[in-house]
Formats: sequence, C-alpha cells, structure tokens
Amino acid sequence: MGFIRKILITRSKKDELFYRELKSILGFRPVNLNIYKKAFTHRSVKNTDKAGNPQNYERLEFLGDALLGAIIASYLFKKAPSGNEGYLTQMRSKIVSREHLNELGRDLNLIKFVTSNIAKSKFGENINGNVFEALIGAIYSDLGYAYCNKFVYKQVIKPHVDIPKLEGKITSYKSLFIEWCQKEKKEFIFDVYDDTGNSSIRYFSVKLILEDKIISKGRATSKKKAEEIAAKRAYYAFQNEISKNK
Amino acid sequence: MGFIRKILITRSKKDELFYRELKSILGFRPVNLNIYKKAFTHRSVKNTDKAGNPQNYERLEFLGDALLGAIIASYLFKKAPSGNEGYLTQMRSKIVSREHLNELGRDLNLIKFVTSNIAKSKFGENINGNVFEALIGAIYSDLGYAYCNKFVYKQVIKPHVDIPKLEGKITSYKSLFIEWCQKEKKEFIFDVYDDTGNSSIRYFSVKLILEDKIISKGRATSKKKAEEIAAKRAYYAFQNEISKNK
Repeated sequence: MGFIRKILITRSKKDELFYRELKSILGFRPVNLNIYKKAFTHRSVKNTDKAGNPQNYERLEFLGDALLGAIIASYLFKKAPSGNEGYLTQMRSKIVSREHLNELGRDLNLIKFVTSNIAKSKFGENINGNVFEALIGAIYSDLGYAYCNKFVYKQVIKPHVDIPKLEGKITSYKSLFIEWCQKEKKEFIFDVYDDTGNSSIRYFSVKLILEDKIISKGRATSKKKAEEIAAKRAYYAFQNEISKNK
Repeated sequence: MGFIRKILITRSKKDELFYRELKSILGFRPVNLNIYKKAFTHRSVKNTDKAGNPQNYERLEFLGDALLGAIIASYLFKKAPSGNEGYLTQMRSKIVSREHLNELGRDLNLIKFVTSNIAKSKFGENINGNVFEALIGAIYSDLGYAYCNKFVYKQVIKPHVDIPKLEGKITSYKSLFIEWCQKEKKEFIFDVYDDTGNSSIRYFSVKLILEDKIISKGRATSKKKAEEIAAKRAYYAFQNEISKNK
C-alpha cells in the first residue's frame, strides 16, 4: 500500500514527440507505439517484419473499418430505439461514408504522421480516411474494445453524429438560427477569430452574440464548422422558442 | 468478508426453461431475458414497447451482424499476419456468408425459440441466420463486447473457422486422410453412432479407428461433419506423416 512505482520508458526524441501528439489525439496513453507507426506507414514503404509480413496500414485499416462499423451500430441501436433495420443501416452509411472519414482524418491532420516513399502531394483524398480507420484499428489492437469505443465516441460520435441532421430534418443549425432571429427581429453576430494557439492544427473559434449577450461558443478546424457548432448549441438552448417558429 | 449473497430470481416455469436452454447455448448466464426473447420474435408478432417501438429481432440482427463482422475481423487480423486487406476481406466474407450463418443457426436449433404469427413452415432458410445474428446482438446488448466475443469464439470460430480450409488449400480432411491410408496401405474405420443423449438437438459421434486403435473422435449435428472433425484431428496429430504424402 501507498507507494508509487514509476516505470521509466526511454524513447528517442522523435518517439517522445510522436507519443505526446498521439496521446493528445487519443485522449489516453498509447502503449505499443509500433502499432501506431504501422497505422501511419504507406504501402510504398517496403518494410517487413522478421517473418516477411508487410508493415503498412492496410491491415489495420481493415480492422478499424470493422470496429468502427460495430461501434456506430451499437450507438445507433441505443440512440434510435424507433429506427428499424433499414433506418439504422442508412444512418450508419452516412456516418462512415468515405467523404466523412476523409474529413475526420483531415481534421486531425493525421497525414503529418504518414511515412511514405512517394510525395505526399501524390496521395489522393482517401489517405485521410484510410489512416483514420487504421488508427482505430491500432487502438483496438493496442488497448482493446473499450478504448477503441472511447476514441470513436470522442472523435466521431460526439462532434459529428447528429441524428436529426443525418435524417435530413435539419441541414444547417446556422440557417435555422438566422431565420428565427430575422423573424423575431433580434440582432445577432457570429464573431469568428483564429484560435490555433499552440496546436499543430489550425483552429477557429466563434462567439455567437444575441442582443449584446454571448449565448454560445464553438471551436473547430474551419470557420463554417465553428459557426455550426455555436448555432447548434444556441439551438438546443433556445429550442422551445425556435421550434415555435417552424 | 466471507459471506455469500444469493439473489433469488423468480421466473415463470416457461422462462426458467428458456433461461436454462439459453445458458447451455451461450456457455454463460444471460441476465436480461427480455432482450433474448426479442431476438427470437418474428416481425409478424406485432408487439411494441410503451413508446410504440416494434419488438422483433430485426434491430438486434443489425447489431449482431456488425459485432460479428468486427470479432471475425479481429480474429483474422491476429491469425493471418501475412494476409493483406484483400485476403482478410475475402476470408471474412466466407465465414459470415448467408449460407454459413444459416447453418450455424440451424445447428443450434434456434428456430425452436422463435415466436411468430405465421406458420414456421413458411419461414425461408434465412430465418436461421437472422436469429443467429440477432442472438449475437442480444448478447452484446445484455452483457457487452467481451461476452459477445466469447460466444462467437465458442460457436463460430472454434468449430467452424479453419483457415487452410477457407483458403481452399484443404477442401476435406476426410479425403486427405483416406488418400494417405490408401497410399500407406493402412486400414481405417469411421465408426459413426447416434449420440443425441438428453440434448434437444440430434447429434452424431464418430470414432476414427486406424489399425485397430482409436486415434480421434468427433461429434456434430451431422454424420459428415462429425467425420470431418475426427479426420481433421487425426490430420493434425499425424500431420508430418500425412503431409509427406502430398
């Protein structure tokens, strides 16, 4: 009882940086860095292990794709108790669409970790989604289902999965908010500013001001997304009043 | 320390029977019986919950399909370290094929649990695979990923997933064994007998006898499968000698 054992791990400077950046993306500590390195290795790098097996992200991408599908299925199953099988399938397809996965990988700027033997400018857009899926596979392989689930909640579900929006009932919270303001003759300002700070990824923040009062905030990798986040928060805060307007 | 708390659960006679049969199929105790009842309810039964949501197996089937896909992906990822993404995808398709899932559901005789408002004779073959997937969804929903994984290992992977066979390298262990015996001029007998016992499903057992000695055994729901299991066990026991023969 009562003594703390500190495990000292010696990492190269480069590994230490990778570990820290990875930890900040994951929200928890990665254990086996090699798995994550593999998740960011393009097949143009002809690495093999001792048994001659190729060491690139493609197998981890397969694994991550399957885990992502299961985690999203489980989320939708719980959150949409009235949706039938067809509805659940359709909602999941929207969430794990190629386009959406590319966006997720791009937002996290995962491409900066990628090692390859071809110029990065030659990658297509899909590399973003591919390494995003490979990262999910790596987390599962390193730490198991619970951590994998945690990461998908943090990076996919919480910021991006919005059932009314996916259903097409709401396409933009910003325009919904603006319509309401115009109808009610209320003044509003979306006050956007650069909020990158020490991050290696560019961020924008926005304050949504209604009648001289800040009613919500948003932060994201594009102005449009930050505005949408703030508008969504305002929408849920003022939901009763706004929905009367519909 | 040191006292045991016994939780007394009162179940109807019918529920108690369902609980016991289910426990024997799962290999562990189910907790929320209602979820499993839903997994065996056909959509012709117009049950709804308080909120008006339909209570049949279709949503659980969606969930089970996704979990099965992830668990098989994870198994193949570990067991076939030299297989690329295309190989892994192809192997998984073979394991989770409609035909194979129907066989798995049929072997467990899951149809006997199904409640419906149409005659069971009107169900197509696919009901077997559908409720098998729904059962996987129910386990996940009741007890989480680890138990779901345990069940898939026990009922799908251990008895049915045989990578060399899936790869088409070996199509029948029985014929491989017979060829070897003929070449080596060894006498063999596949001694098959009914071994249903107290089970509600019909079982066959086989003793594989080589030169008057029992070298392996097999038990399954068909004679052919039982023979194949015994031949496979013999194959792995005599692998060195048999593969010299190839």
